[in-house]
Amino acid sequence: MTDSETLPDASQTVSFLGPAGTFTEAALKLAPEAKGKHWKPVANVLEALMDVQQGRSFAAMVAIENSVEGGVTASQDALSTMDGLRIIGEYIVPIRFVLATRPGTTMRDVQTVAAHPVAYGQCRRWLHQALPEHLYVQASSNVASARQLFEEDGLADAAIAPPTIQDHFDVDILAEDIQDSSIARTRFLLVTTRTDLPSRTGTDKTSLIVTLPDERPGGLLSMLEQFAARGINLSMITSRPIPESPGRYRFVIDLDGHLEDARVADALLGLRRYSPSVKFLGSYPRAVPSPVAVDPAYSDENYAEARGWLDGLVR
Amino acid sequence: MTDSETLPDASQTVSFLGPAGTFTEAALKLAPEAKGKHWKPVANVLEALMDVQQGRSFAAMVAIENSVEGGVTASQDALSTMDGLRIIGEYIVPIRFVLATRPGTTMRDVQTVAAHPVAYGQCRRWLHQALPEHLYVQASSNVASARQLFEEDGLADAAIAPPTIQDHFDVDILAEDIQDSSIARTRFLLVTTRTDLPSRTGTDKTSLIVTLPDERPGGLLSMLEQFAARGINLSMITSRPIPESPGRYRFVIDLDGHLEDARVADALLGLRRYSPSVKFLGSYPRAVPSPVAVDPAYSDENYAEARGWLDGLVR
Amino acid sequence: MTDSETLPDASQTVSFLGPAGTFTEAALKLAPEAKGKHWKPVANVLEALMDVQQGRSFAAMVAIENSVEGGVTASQDALSTMDGLRIIGEYIVPIRFVLATRPGTTMRDVQTVAAHPVAYGQCRRWLHQALPEHLYVQASSNVASARQLFEEDGLADAAIAPPTIQDHFDVDILAEDIQDSSIARTRFLLVTTRTDLPSRTGTDKTSLIVTLPDERPGGLLSMLEQFAARGINLSMITSRPIPESPGRYRFVIDLDGHLEDARVADALLGLRRYSPSVKFLGSYPRAVPSPVAVDPAYSDENYAEARGWLDGLVR
Amino acid sequence: MTDSETLPDASQTVSFLGPAGTFTEAALKLAPEAKGKHWKPVANVLEALMDVQQGRSFAAMVAIENSVEGGVTASQDALSTMDGLRIIGEYIVPIRFVLATRPGTTMRDVQTVAAHPVAYGQCRRWLHQALPEHLYVQASSNVASARQLFEEDGLADAAIAPPTIQDHFDVDILAEDIQDSSIARTRFLLVTTRTDLPSRTGTDKTSLIVTLPDERPGGLLSMLEQFAARGINLSMITSRPIPESPGRYRFVIDLDGHLEDARVADALLGLRRYSPSVKFLGSYPRAVPSPVAVDPAYSDENYAEARGWLDGLVR
Repeated sequence: MTDSETLPDASQTVSFLGPAGTFTEAALKLAPEAKGKHWKPVANVLEALMDVQQGRSFAAMVAIENSVEGGVTASQDALSTMDGLRIIGEYIVPIRFVLATRPGTTMRDVQTVAAHPVAYGQCRRWLHQALPEHLYVQASSNVASARQLFEEDGLADAAIAPPTIQDHFDVDILAEDIQDSSIARTRFLLVTTRTDLPSRTGTDKTSLIVTLPDERPGGLLSMLEQFAARGINLSMITSRPIPESPGRYRFVIDLDGHLEDARVADALLGLRRYSPSVKFLGSYPRAVPSPVAVDPAYSDENYAEARGWLDGLVR
Repeated sequence: MTDSETLPDASQTVSFLGPAGTFTEAALKLAPEAKGKHWKPVANVLEALMDVQQGRSFAAMVAIENSVEGGVTASQDALSTMDGLRIIGEYIVPIRFVLATRPGTTMRDVQTVAAHPVAYGQCRRWLHQALPEHLYVQASSNVASARQLFEEDGLADAAIAPPTIQDHFDVDILAEDIQDSSIARTRFLLVTTRTDLPSRTGTDKTSLIVTLPDERPGGLLSMLEQFAARGINLSMITSRPIPESPGRYRFVIDLDGHLEDARVADALLGLRRYSPSVKFLGSYPRAVPSPVAVDPAYSDENYAEARGWLDGLVR
Repeated sequence: MTDSETLPDASQTVSFLGPAGTFTEAALKLAPEAKGKHWKPVANVLEALMDVQQGRSFAAMVAIENSVEGGVTASQDALSTMDGLRIIGEYIVPIRFVLATRPGTTMRDVQTVAAHPVAYGQCRRWLHQALPEHLYVQASSNVASARQLFEEDGLADAAIAPPTIQDHFDVDILAEDIQDSSIARTRFLLVTTRTDLPSRTGTDKTSLIVTLPDERPGGLLSMLEQFAARGINLSMITSRPIPESPGRYRFVIDLDGHLEDARVADALLGLRRYSPSVKFLGSYPRAVPSPVAVDPAYSDENYAEARGWLDGLVR
Repeated sequence: MTDSETLPDASQTVSFLGPAGTFTEAALKLAPEAKGKHWKPVANVLEALMDVQQGRSFAAMVAIENSVEGGVTASQDALSTMDGLRIIGEYIVPIRFVLATRPGTTMRDVQTVAAHPVAYGQCRRWLHQALPEHLYVQASSNVASARQLFEEDGLADAAIAPPTIQDHFDVDILAEDIQDSSIARTRFLLVTTRTDLPSRTGTDKTSLIVTLPDERPGGLLSMLEQFAARGINLSMITSRPIPESPGRYRFVIDLDGHLEDARVADALLGLRRYSPSVKFLGSYPRAVPSPVAVDPAYSDENYAEARGWLDGLVR
């Protein structure tokens, strides 16, 4: 598309679900690794991850849970099936919306509102009260909604957009925090091909994709016992059907802890023996750095003590 | 928006993620209950479910797993938090795409392709081979992509769209089955406010939303034991963060069986006692009518036998 | 052995491991049901239980755990294999021993000590200190030891016996509480053929014999989940090999609770469905009437509430 | 009791529950380690184990399950509380009885039968048929019964004794295999202070004493998950009350496998971390050398493979 010499160096490029102004871009602003790099907007999560896998970018920011921009299951499935990817960071972005207009527009002027369907769904209550008579125009992203304000044949008088929209368009903000929930958040992951692990911080997460050995009642239970038997808390579990194997599932799992925690390493060993497929996606600091509560029974010290005891038995 | 006398009778209306031509509409075509009814396209899943809850439609069709049109987590969260909804049917639609153009266009003419981002992601391989030099234009839905072909300032020469796109636009189909995977499918649910249960067929599913009593390792395990201890297989489990309670989760669960199966009723009793919140979303026939394998230990007959034995003990 | 007309009425007879003076007799003194009845000493536990089964006695007192008089595994196996028996009471007897002699004997005179082997083992430390040079003569019971003091060719100068031995022989007690452990106790059960259940007291136990469906790792776990999934604590579990089925086991189980507790009834239903054989041996008040701690999740009220909820779902 | 110079060398002495002629002695005959050694009869199991612990014997043979000579719970409790003991072998002795008499006695002459109470209980059916009118005299062991035949004031005309009784007394055998069950067996263990492990044979057992961390429903389940999560089968489990801690239990456990099996070592590590007290009693060949079935998921090879995989992740 452009000459290769003008392409930014892949090692200086991060891909994200664009365009500029999305919540995904807001997540990038939280990532120290992305600072000062070229941020490449792409059309979807799969494209972002393929940029990384194929060496066009050194990292991609993708939504993994609860996104208002879509892509959650696409992220999960891509991480499940693509090789060589590793998560190195987690970021949480609060979901807040504003009502943006062309300069000079007042609430009374607003007859038509452009919005991405999910954003529109999240602002229903406010719209019902403030603009009960409005018409709705669908937009393809949370930024495209504002862009419609300035298009030649644009019908929209107002757009639902993220608070950062003023960085990208010359808009007035008629109302802030118009989303129904004041606590909605989206969780993002920064994905690379690096194989060295981020250092252990004590407030880490580890992400895995695990396949059950067969389809029978209790199989999931046996898998989860691998975690419970080491006192490990899960913060996310999602079954995903395996298209090629109807009736079978893989599980996308986030657990509290780092691969260098003895209990986590031990659980991974247990999973690996039990499951036909365990994919390690990385250990990385949690976005919310509340410390992981570790039962003393499963502390590194206790692991070392038990190992010493066993070694004494067998000499 | 229109006079109420011209509104279709709610009892004759089904809402779906529009516009006409989406995969969600394809799912509607599979549902006997939707036959001959007014199909009302809406902008997003939440709107569809609110139509049902607020009596504007008697049913809504929503994607619940693996959608290419988005809305999966929105469906899950809406079913978790909205009251009075019941699932009465499940439908599976194969995900297939075609390359549609204005009549007379040939492959050689195609420079720009319009597509919904997820659809675009699913056709990458074919596009790379057949149209290596194409430019991409983002569309807000799998139908809006085709609509761009006919817009005044439309840039697109071709659109990625569902096979049914010819029912809606006068297009040529230059290529069929251009999706990368030949086995992708999306699962849809038909949601109503009916409280009578669809009859037991022997190939049923039951959907639940369950909250864990507290956040501790092993809590999920204890919950799943309620199913394993009755020989019940889960076909879907997804944790969803509860925004109001950071660090806590609810679980969206599909299990094999009908509420009128003794083992399912027994498991629901167990869950209800264990969990602070169990939401029953319905029992309904599976889209794929393969019979549910039931361990004789958990058959209705065995339940009745055990009850007779116990009654004999206490007389 | 005696004329039948002189036989005591079976409804007035209780069998126990004799002779008079054993700890088993001490347990009988604790049982209101045995008060004023004819106490029939028999040679072993099996004989006592057969007296009940065959109608010669209305009850038998047998040791079930930790006996110094033997018979524990015999009791367990007899309860497992004999039909028609029900436990109606539990009694705990502290295990205390005295050193008994013929009147006038002093410690300096004691050269030879008669004792049942198990009693002898339980008084080793005291004997080592007080009578380091003594010789040991084996006795067939804790009463036979004292009887040897008065036999014509008896070698014993002293006998290890229960504190009640003075009720049966004219002995001097040279030392009390000579057992090594001050806290040893034996647990006894009163067994009948009554099929009405002792009333629920809130501090009850229930005894079961359960067979696993097959021999595989995890089978025991699945069985125990039936209890854990209802918040039921076990106070005893013992595997017993099934002689006719090498490699298979039955389990002798005591749990906290009464068959009329909803959670116990529910667990029994679960076991009955899971196991090829569940034998209910009775619900009866615990010897130590500390109340059973019941998680509110498994209270009768919660069971009733859950049932009401389910009935509402299916109408 | 005797001069120390005449005492047999402890390294050449094995203690057993005597007198000569017991089933315990029959077990000794099966143990290669006991061959050619001095066999020292003692009064009870505790004494036998103390001989080992205190260096008077290098080994003791004790019954661990299903004994007709008593001592099972004594063995279990002694192994639980005494330090420094290790099991090195397991032996199974079929329980068979004969009716022994003084030479020349015929069935018609038999009016009184001497027997150990448990042996008497195991021959009831035969006695009922063959000697319906007999009187019973209690004996303190399965050999003491026969000794009574030759005592001055002995009342017994016949004795129930093991088949080997003729090695010890000049008796006639009037009937063989008079026990009710043709399949009763007793399991014995050879106990030493050796700390080197018997070599792994592929048909091994490992014995443990494990204490639960606290008293709550599900605690036993969590402990057993340590075994189930490694595909390990238990062949014995028995709860034993801890006298010093009312309401708490230790568990006597036999499992299939050797400490040098990776899955067994791993389970012991898990137990050690979980439990306040794990006592390793030894790994030794099973008496019945049927091979242990090992799920390939838990083979040594799979353990090594998983370890290699994990090492690759952390480099």
